This record gives sequence, structure tokens and C-alpha cells, in this order.
Amino acid sequence: MPEEITKIASTEREARSFIRAAREGRKRIGLVPTMGALHEGHLSLVRAARRTCESVAVTIFVNPAQFGQTEDLSKYPRTIDEDLEALRDLGVDLIFLPSQDELYPNGFSTYVLPPAVADPFEGQFRPEHFRGVATIVLKLLNLLPADVAFFGQKDFQQFQVIRQMVKDLNVPVEIQACPIVREPDGLAMSSRNRYLTPDERERAVALSDALAEAKRCFDDGATSSSTLAEYMSEILRKAKITKIDYAEVADANTLQRIDQIDRPAVALIAAYVGRTRLIDNTLLAAE
Amino acid sequence: MPEEITKIASTEREARSFIRAAREGRKRIGLVPTMGALHEGHLSLVRAARRTCESVAVTIFVNPAQFGQTEDLSKYPRTIDEDLEALRDLGVDLIFLPSQDELYPNGFSTYVLPPAVADPFEGQFRPEHFRGVATIVLKLLNLLPADVAFFGQKDFQQFQVIRQMVKDLNVPVEIQACPIVREPDGLAMSSRNRYLTPDERERAVALSDALAEAKRCFDDGATSSSTLAEYMSEILRKAKITKIDYAEVADANTLQRIDQIDRPAVALIAAYVGRTRLIDNTLLAAE
Repeated sequence: MPEEITKIASTEREARSFIRAAREGRKRIGLVPTMGALHEGHLSLVRAARRTCESVAVTIFVNPAQFGQTEDLSKYPRTIDEDLEALRDLGVDLIFLPSQDELYPNGFSTYVLPPAVADPFEGQFRPEHFRGVATIVLKLLNLLPADVAFFGQKDFQQFQVIRQMVKDLNVPVEIQACPIVREPDGLAMSSRNRYLTPDERERAVALSDALAEAKRCFDDGATSSSTLAEYMSEILRKAKITKIDYAEVADANTLQRIDQIDRPAVALIAAYVGRTRLIDNTLLAAE
Repeated sequence: MPEEITKIASTEREARSFIRAAREGRKRIGLVPTMGALHEGHLSLVRAARRTCESVAVTIFVNPAQFGQTEDLSKYPRTIDEDLEALRDLGVDLIFLPSQDELYPNGFSTYVLPPAVADPFEGQFRPEHFRGVATIVLKLLNLLPADVAFFGQKDFQQFQVIRQMVKDLNVPVEIQACPIVREPDGLAMSSRNRYLTPDERERAVALSDALAEAKRCFDDGATSSSTLAEYMSEILRKAKITKIDYAEVADANTLQRIDQIDRPAVALIAAYVGRTRLIDNTLLAAE
């Protein structure tokens, strides 16, 4: 059995030297950007990369630029030892663990103004979030120019933002979305699930229940977005989830709200369970 | 004598195929982005590229995103036949001539928010100019990933914007500035000089005269920015140049205005000669 060696890099120079070696070996390179606190959702991205790429790099960086001033940057979960162990077990080739100073040195002031698909939904409730996401993803794609980068469908709008950014800015990388990984009861895996109390954890399943109900109604012939939205809100309220940022249906490509589901669409929820904001979504395939 | 063949590309696919071939041949690649209407200033960039790179690509694209609504996009000079001939004569390997649809297709909506060095001077008078410049340069660097890209010192603030953008976004390219090329009387070469009437052409030399005077005073020991600024304005006014956007001294790296010239500095002028807005600058090296 060949010895698997996972390299750890923390500087731009080390990252580039890894890519150079992989390119020399004509290896297909896969990149999985994360903020750590890894769960099965992240690991499914790594496994997808492992299946189709000869060289897999995972980045762990809690990106301050994508957190709002009132958000949970300082208490965002950090589980670096467990993260490294899990990635080593999966035979990852490179783990890139840069410092804040490495990625945002003094004088840093260039950002990516994300595409229009960033404006609704998360864009309304987290005004500079996607600016920070687009900026860090572009930086990582420049530092570790991979052939393909993997993102979870759980952050559906983020995936569309990155897909459009990469197209608009001519970044030579393929962007691949991987399915949402769920707990046995349906709750979408998220690093923020750790924040939930046992009672909140039970109630949190209402998000995936609501989306499943919307999908069921759509499959049964309902095509009115507002009808599906009402069903979803009702299920959330029954679970005492009352702070709902949105529970709606949108065009799956543009994320524009639609009245009738006459094209590929997505049902999206963002809601607070206790003090924890969770998001989830499900695709509604139009015939 | 080996036959020199200049390729012309107009699509992303053709551009990438050129770069791939150059990389296979392990050639050092130089990129010279232009808006056409080439003059000796541009050609000096191409010669600089030719000297240090085995493969030289020149782009010609009049970038709408960097023109303001009241600016001269539609009447910006286009001299494509002469441009191609001049570039062929210099043995350029690739000329990239994309259409607007190729670079800004329907749905395009991602921009680069340029670094802080874009804010003063041109940033005040042409509010979205550097957003457009930074965006197109990043796109071109992604389409034609060169080892080194060449820019004229004539657009000094643009050079600093691009240098900082490339650093902030981790774009793996070296940015090289080349000296301003001047007419025999001192006027900096510019595609916009074509707009000048004979009388305006004569008066336009006041910009370079003013900068030369500022440099002379600095070399003679003057260190007050406002004193140099007054000298410059006086020379401009004597040439009946009264619409002066700025004629000032700034920190050469940050472009922040300074009172005392106690660090590397630059004297910068933007002014209208008739209806034509011209810019020019000169470095004031602090000891």
C-alpha cells in the first residue's frame, strides 16, 4: 500500500510550489475551499474531488471578509485537530492553512463586487457577505489554480455567485456543486448546527421538513410560488421558528423571485432557530 | 531569417490555445494590454516585452467599462489596420482582438472593486474608471495568463491600481512599468493627442513643461508640495489651460496627497486642452 503523505502549507509560496509539482506531473487538480469545522458535507466534497482528481487540495480559512459586524466570526467553530485528521484519512494531498496576515496583509483593499445573483436573499440580509466570499474564492483560485473546485449545494446562492463570477472574470476553472448531506432526520449538515441546544436541534428539522413539503406539493402539480411559500412558513411556525429571513421560491439560475414555477426553480429558507441562523434549500425541477 | 507569424485571436478558446502552446514550449510570456490607436508609447511596451519574453501577446480592446457616460467611448480613435501592421513589424506572436460580446456577454455583472490607491485624482474625476480598468485587466490576465504584463508610466495611477490589485488578489503575474514616451517638445504620447487642433497641440506642451519645472524645483531643494503645485498651475494658466482637474504632488506609492516631499513622490496633472482631457506625471525621487 503506497504511503499517503498529506502536505500542510500556510504561505503563498508553498501553495504555488505544490501546484507547480502537480502540473509537472500532469495531474488533474481539485480544490475544496472550507472554513474548517468540517462535517460530512465537507467530506463529501473531498471524496468527490478524490474520485475525479489525482491531486486534491483543501483550504481551511475562516474568512473575516464574509462575516458581518454583528455576526459570529469570533465564535465560529474551530476544530483544527479533528479537521486535519479527517482530511489525512481521506488522503488529501495538500491542506492550505493560511494566516489572516498571509491573505489580508496591511494595505489590502481590492474586492470582488459579486454578480447580480448575489443581490437577493442572502444579499439582502448579509449585505457584504458575498463580496467577501467572491473575494476569498478568487484569491484561493489564484493561489491554488485548480482544474475543478467543489462547493456544496447547501450554499446554493453562493454556488451561483461563484459560478457567475468565474465566468464573468474568465477564471479557468470548472465549478462543481455537490448534493446537500443531511442528518438522518433531514437537517442539512452545517458547522453552525453545533450552536443548537437539544430543543433547538429538534425544532431545526422544520427547515428540511418545510422544503420537503414544498417539493412534494410541486411534484403533485402546485406551481404557485406564493402557495409553496405559505406552506413552508406554516411548517416553520409550527416549530416555533418565527424569525424567518425568507422562505420562498426563485429561478434557480438567476435567484430572481418568480410567481409561477415554469422553469428550473429552487425553494430557499433562511431562519433563526433560537439565536442560530440556518439556511437550506431544495431544487424544484421544472419539466 | 525565420518567418515570423503573428496570430490573431478573437475568442477565449483561441487565446487559451495560444497560451497552452507557449507554456508547453516553456516560453516566458509577456502581455501588453492596449485599447489600440497605438503610438510610440505602446510600441515601447511591446519592445520591452520582446526583449525579455520569448512569446509576446498584445490585446486591443476598447473597454466600455472604463469610460464614463459623458466620455469619449464612441469617438475613441480606432486605427486597427495601422495597429496590426505595427505589431506585425515588431514580431508580436499573438494579437488578441475580442468583441464586446466575447468579454461582456449577456448577464455579465461581476466587477473588481479597485484598491484604495484608485480613490484620489482620477478616481475623483472619473468615478468608475478604475473599476472598469481593474476588471478588464483581471479578465485579460485570466484569459492570457502571462508571466509579466507591461503598462506605461504615463498612466501612473493605473499602474499602481493594477500593481495593488494583482497583489491583493494573488494574481501570479509580474507587473512592469515602462517610461513615458514623449514627443520632441515633451508632450507625453497619448491616443487622445489626435483630438488636438494645431493651436491646442502647441499649448498642450504646458503639461510636460509644468512637470519639468516641478522636477527642477524639487531637484533644487524645494520640498513643499503646495509650492510645486502653484508653479505647475501657473505654467498651465499661462498656456490658457484653465480647466485643471489637478496639478499636485502625492506619495508615489499610495497616491495620498503630502505636504512635504519627504518620500518617493509623484507630480501629477490632469487638465483640459480645449475639449481634450490630457494627463501626465513625473516622479520626484526623494533622497
